[in-house]
Amino acid sequence: MAIKEGIRTGGRSARVQESVHAAVRALLQEQERDSLTVPLIASRAGVTPSTIYRRWGELAALLADVSLARLRPDSAPADTGTLRNDLLAWAEQYLDEMNSEPGRNMMRDFIASGCSSQCATVLRGQLQTILARAVKRGEPAPDADHLLNLIVAPVVYRILFAESAPSLEHMHELVNLSLRR
Amino acid sequence: MAIKEGIRTGGRSARVQESVHAAVRALLQEQERDSLTVPLIASRAGVTPSTIYRRWGELAALLADVSLARLRPDSAPADTGTLRNDLLAWAEQYLDEMNSEPGRNMMRDFIASGCSSQCATVLRGQLQTILARAVKRGEPAPDADHLLNLIVAPVVYRILFAESAPSLEHMHELVNLSLRR
Repeated sequence: MAIKEGIRTGGRSARVQESVHAAVRALLQEQERDSLTVPLIASRAGVTPSTIYRRWGELAALLADVSLARLRPDSAPADTGTLRNDLLAWAEQYLDEMNSEPGRNMMRDFIASGCSSQCATVLRGQLQTILARAVKRGEPAPDADHLLNLIVAPVVYRILFAESAPSLEHMHELVNLSLRR
Repeated sequence: MAIKEGIRTGGRSARVQESVHAAVRALLQEQERDSLTVPLIASRAGVTPSTIYRRWGELAALLADVSLARLRPDSAPADTGTLRNDLLAWAEQYLDEMNSEPGRNMMRDFIASGCSSQCATVLRGQLQTILARAVKRGEPAPDADHLLNLIVAPVVYRILFAESAPSLEHMHELVNLSLRR
């Protein structure tokens, strides 16, 4: 059920992907997520349903793929001059995004589609960018997985399992704790 | 979609619950989880499907309820004499349970059924038992939510989103970190 890999980018394949993604984004603005179907998306995107099934396998994987594209930021995380402040800024933005209706839906799509590890891969990449800058500045830096455990995991856990996200104050505590050695 | 509350325990209601739970546990031993249906469970339990729909609403909520009953231990967490060792023992057992096929399925059931917060409530209760003992011994103790964030959240996150549970060594590090002040 994983999002299929290895599809060449560029050309017809890229155009199909862009128009299907755009159709999903537009439909999500107009109607309830639960009412989305593959034929509906195909019709809006001007492709056949079998094009979507062939490429994404099923609706949950397509929704997760659209979410993943949204999660990949256009730019690198902000450079504030210190690791601590870079992490605070990143953590606040992450909390903000996940603690929203689209954020909660994204997590559920990832779990339902069985391709949730791609989500951790994107986040790990962003954290590695921040950590590489810290190392360049000569700051001591933990590894990205430690930050996933201490900053990302509590946000995801509390939203999925405890129905309330950590407070901003609590995010600051977690960032501080992640930097203690 | 939450598991329905307020059903009186004892009498017919308790007997129905016990026989439906037993039917689910027995069927899960015999066949693939994906092949379970409400009519199948009802037939095995000797009740009508509408009894199940009325009480649990839908299959995911019933499966989550059965998992929840399994999650509630028969006895209090082991008393090893110190908070640190109590937490290490508890964390190892929790990691072990979640990092199994039934544990992974349990997490998915909870998320699908929309009653995942009951899972955090059970865990918080177990941690509070451990913490109350520490306070009685005169040990400094964090609060239960801090332990949920630092010990439970990384296990759940890594299993759901990174496809591998933390190592035992890493669990020890997380327990140590949760006790630092």
